[in-house]
Amino acid sequence: MDQILQLSYALDTFYFLMTGALVMWMAAGFAMLEAGLVRSKNTTEILAKNFGLFAIACIMYMLVGYNIMYPAEAINEYWPGFSFLIGGDHATAAVIAGGDDAPYYSGMSDFFFQVVFVATAMSVVSGAVAERMKLMTFFAFAVVFTGFIYPMQGFWKWGGGFLDALGFLDFAGSGVVHMAGASAALAGVILLGARKGKYGPNGESRAILGANLPMATLGTFILWLGWFGFNGGSELKISNVEEANAVAMVFVNTLMAAAGGVIGALILAKIKFGKADLTMMLNGALAGLVAITADPLHPTALEATLIGLVGGAIVVVAILVLDHKFKIDDPVGAISVHGVVGIFGLIAVTFTNPDATIVAQLTGIGVIFAWVFGTSFIVWSILKAVMGIRISEEEEFEGADQSECGMEAYPEFAK
Amino acid sequence: MDQILQLSYALDTFYFLMTGALVMWMAAGFAMLEAGLVRSKNTTEILAKNFGLFAIACIMYMLVGYNIMYPAEAINEYWPGFSFLIGGDHATAAVIAGGDDAPYYSGMSDFFFQVVFVATAMSVVSGAVAERMKLMTFFAFAVVFTGFIYPMQGFWKWGGGFLDALGFLDFAGSGVVHMAGASAALAGVILLGARKGKYGPNGESRAILGANLPMATLGTFILWLGWFGFNGGSELKISNVEEANAVAMVFVNTLMAAAGGVIGALILAKIKFGKADLTMMLNGALAGLVAITADPLHPTALEATLIGLVGGAIVVVAILVLDHKFKIDDPVGAISVHGVVGIFGLIAVTFTNPDATIVAQLTGIGVIFAWVFGTSFIVWSILKAVMGIRISEEEEFEGADQSECGMEAYPEFAK
Amino acid sequence: MDQILQLSYALDTFYFLMTGALVMWMAAGFAMLEAGLVRSKNTTEILAKNFGLFAIACIMYMLVGYNIMYPAEAINEYWPGFSFLIGGDHATAAVIAGGDDAPYYSGMSDFFFQVVFVATAMSVVSGAVAERMKLMTFFAFAVVFTGFIYPMQGFWKWGGGFLDALGFLDFAGSGVVHMAGASAALAGVILLGARKGKYGPNGESRAILGANLPMATLGTFILWLGWFGFNGGSELKISNVEEANAVAMVFVNTLMAAAGGVIGALILAKIKFGKADLTMMLNGALAGLVAITADPLHPTALEATLIGLVGGAIVVVAILVLDHKFKIDDPVGAISVHGVVGIFGLIAVTFTNPDATIVAQLTGIGVIFAWVFGTSFIVWSILKAVMGIRISEEEEFEGADQSECGMEAYPEFAK
Repeated sequence: MDQILQLSYALDTFYFLMTGALVMWMAAGFAMLEAGLVRSKNTTEILAKNFGLFAIACIMYMLVGYNIMYPAEAINEYWPGFSFLIGGDHATAAVIAGGDDAPYYSGMSDFFFQVVFVATAMSVVSGAVAERMKLMTFFAFAVVFTGFIYPMQGFWKWGGGFLDALGFLDFAGSGVVHMAGASAALAGVILLGARKGKYGPNGESRAILGANLPMATLGTFILWLGWFGFNGGSELKISNVEEANAVAMVFVNTLMAAAGGVIGALILAKIKFGKADLTMMLNGALAGLVAITADPLHPTALEATLIGLVGGAIVVVAILVLDHKFKIDDPVGAISVHGVVGIFGLIAVTFTNPDATIVAQLTGIGVIFAWVFGTSFIVWSILKAVMGIRISEEEEFEGADQSECGMEAYPEFAK
Repeated sequence: MDQILQLSYALDTFYFLMTGALVMWMAAGFAMLEAGLVRSKNTTEILAKNFGLFAIACIMYMLVGYNIMYPAEAINEYWPGFSFLIGGDHATAAVIAGGDDAPYYSGMSDFFFQVVFVATAMSVVSGAVAERMKLMTFFAFAVVFTGFIYPMQGFWKWGGGFLDALGFLDFAGSGVVHMAGASAALAGVILLGARKGKYGPNGESRAILGANLPMATLGTFILWLGWFGFNGGSELKISNVEEANAVAMVFVNTLMAAAGGVIGALILAKIKFGKADLTMMLNGALAGLVAITADPLHPTALEATLIGLVGGAIVVVAILVLDHKFKIDDPVGAISVHGVVGIFGLIAVTFTNPDATIVAQLTGIGVIFAWVFGTSFIVWSILKAVMGIRISEEEEFEGADQSECGMEAYPEFAK
Repeated sequence: MDQILQLSYALDTFYFLMTGALVMWMAAGFAMLEAGLVRSKNTTEILAKNFGLFAIACIMYMLVGYNIMYPAEAINEYWPGFSFLIGGDHATAAVIAGGDDAPYYSGMSDFFFQVVFVATAMSVVSGAVAERMKLMTFFAFAVVFTGFIYPMQGFWKWGGGFLDALGFLDFAGSGVVHMAGASAALAGVILLGARKGKYGPNGESRAILGANLPMATLGTFILWLGWFGFNGGSELKISNVEEANAVAMVFVNTLMAAAGGVIGALILAKIKFGKADLTMMLNGALAGLVAITADPLHPTALEATLIGLVGGAIVVVAILVLDHKFKIDDPVGAISVHGVVGIFGLIAVTFTNPDATIVAQLTGIGVIFAWVFGTSFIVWSILKAVMGIRISEEEEFEGADQSECGMEAYPEFAK
């Protein structure tokens, strides 16, 4: 191969590895965000959940998920067929990017970039089911979700399946990653029920305060940083002028949408509560990020800011409606942030990308939701029957930390 | 464009995006540092301040600031004229680096790198006014500072204005970013006054302890890491041997100056207090970083260490003098770190860079301080008259968290 | 130099700087991990320890260490001779990578990458001696370790000394960095003795709980992220297809080994304690990382997972055996993670790398341990005689924070 192609290969591979490392870092972001937003008695458990799910996601995706999502040869556009294991042959395999022959990048760097995405999707789930789910049941679900449920719908879009064929657009995964995670979470939360004490005798919702807001803020900053990798790496190539411009645009729009989300949530919360609600500001940033993820390339910086701003406003409403109206107890607001705003993001693609159609976007939303919610509901139900899904009332009162992990997160501080 | 130029364009763009991402990460560093150094009752509020200012900085700089600081065509070297909005045309615009024609890099990557700098300058302010300022007043100031005050003086130096013309040297912003932030902070602190209880009946200064030193330490480590992007990216180009050597030198000197700063502060604090004062060590590292920022390229690694060491010693003295002598209540020492040491750094350029003159450096210091302090004082004064600048005495006693954000940072822990 | 070589030089330099920055970030990881695993009364001190050692490591390695480890001209393969200072001539020096002439990369980027490794080795020590060692004694030891003890054995392997000549393989430092750090720690712990109250009157081991598990989890995530730089950068070059593939393989194996380590520790802890022990999961991840560090290039992703899994299981056993059987009081399990698993990693090289011999690996292990443990024991002993090594019983009861740093880490929270 000539030297220029070699350099281009090296640069694209390095770009994948660095953006992938940023996405890996999002696992820490979810862990800190969720640890900050639960009570201290359930903190060790949610840390263990986040830490363990990341390991499970890596292993399951290596064993089966990657080959389902990106099959060497698919049976048809609905069914990838199965082959196992990222093996020795992948170590020197090159991936052809785009339709042309060159440049390539390392197959292993592609795996690295993809594997951290499945972990992200799974991280969405952990927050929603916090403070009451059995840890081992969660891990068992993670095995199925990361090894099978996620890769199947991922194949339908990014692996060249039927959602891609019908023109559904989802640049970096507002649907494939975030809404998918939220759909699995919703199924779990419905089967699990609300935390003890969350709803009063007359059905009124009670605020349950997070124990450590600096942690939650740190987690959100981590996610914001990691998202530059999440969206920025999803351009998949940087080694020429056009691609470099595209990646830069994606970075800027990712930044601006998050900024817009903060302001959208801040303004709405200020109007509604009269205060600058920090947790809403954090969720606003994440909402802006989720909203722009479906298309961070086509909007101008101003449009990206506005998409984020609307996303940030939506998430405030969604959190209140899901909690107060639907009595869906989602301790960290994950279903609103990643699900409701994910849907908005997918629809918003039609505002700025002339190739998008509302029919294709709604089809994609419907298919992903139906598949992930449906299969997740079945898996959670089986796990409920086999292992149990919820810790006992007494354990919940004492805290999941003791029952699941046998140790307190802050043994010297908590009341 | 030929393939080699394309690759060079891609590499420089990627370099900008990665170093810019590191600078964005500094926002988290400031947030954690300040959250760790205030009392628990004011922690949510300072987190909201840091989180919100970052969003405001991004939006204002996108709307007006960037075009003021780097105008397509300036009216003269004092007055950039105004054009608005980073728009669609920037998405494919290439920036010409240096005097020659090639290589270029993406215009959007340049915006990305520059926008995180204005957020850094604004972050300097938030710590100094902690624990007593009204949050919305702070946000209003942030709008003016990031949209107008900062970009004007930025134009004078980096946008090709008169400070650049007269030979003022400031590689990555000891003056344009750090001292500018500190000058705005000083104006605010003077108008705001000290925290209740900070000075005793006889004017003696009382220590008010930070609630969470691991957070503060984490924040400092984040800033240290982010500074590699701050200084390292400010070389603006990496794609040939000479530039790559320069960037590597900047990374090393940034590392060494921070290390020197830690040791300088450690030794002086040990002599003065007999103990290894952790907060002084943290401020020492930051002082070393601020000091080297004016010129991280010309010193040898040893000289960078010594510049950092002196910076670290200066900051210990400055913090004590500002607090005890001048009764300037700066809860995190931001004015000392970024202002006093920023001035030292600008002067230190003359030690190692033969192109620097003390007259030009002092002129730059004077102009930036006069402009930023002056305009900030006016803006803070207007805000004081219109919105009020300080929370009520009762609110201050209860903590800004309740009055400004309506939620505690650590509801289960704090006494 | 032709343009392609220039670009290749720039890319490799940038790769070094970014991976080096990730390794620098590991310093924050160690600080947070250790701060989370000690009691709140000793938290400020361990933060100061970690912060200070990083500064000392940078300065000592710049002054003497780098030139010992990578001498311009060694006297023989045992003795590098001494030259001082990373000076002005390094700023433009190019390093020749591999046997061929091209490509080069910046000499300063090489220093940057290497200096953060010595800080990593020193960070291993700080956790093991936590909660009872005098801070200034620790700093004095750090001077000798980072300036002399570490660089000498580093020269023997990576600087072209006799361990390299006899075929000892250690890709990124399971031995040279991790086991070396653990060996110095072991010498210190033996001279220091256990914390008061750690062992009961009948010699039974008592659990002493860490004060802040979210911090410890964050620290482990930071280390995991930083390790991509640690191992990924140790390929030393990325600018052609073969090297890019190798770096990508290293990233993937580093990820998978950590994932395997989590699962190995989780399963064993679940079997032994009936709970998902979070601190064991954290140590499991680190064990997986240490285990793969000796050769993250040759294993397949599945083999890397299994090596990590075994490492994760070993660390659970090692921690219990060292604590209960040998009464070695290592508050964070550093000797087990970095020492015991480091040895396993060095031996595991023979499983997948046909060039490895068990004799060479055991020789390397023996030499590094003998050198580092021996010299460290002597230095700790001298320091014990001269400065004292342990804080007084009363100071230990009150906490090292007061005696060493004069300030509490959490003045508002701790009981």
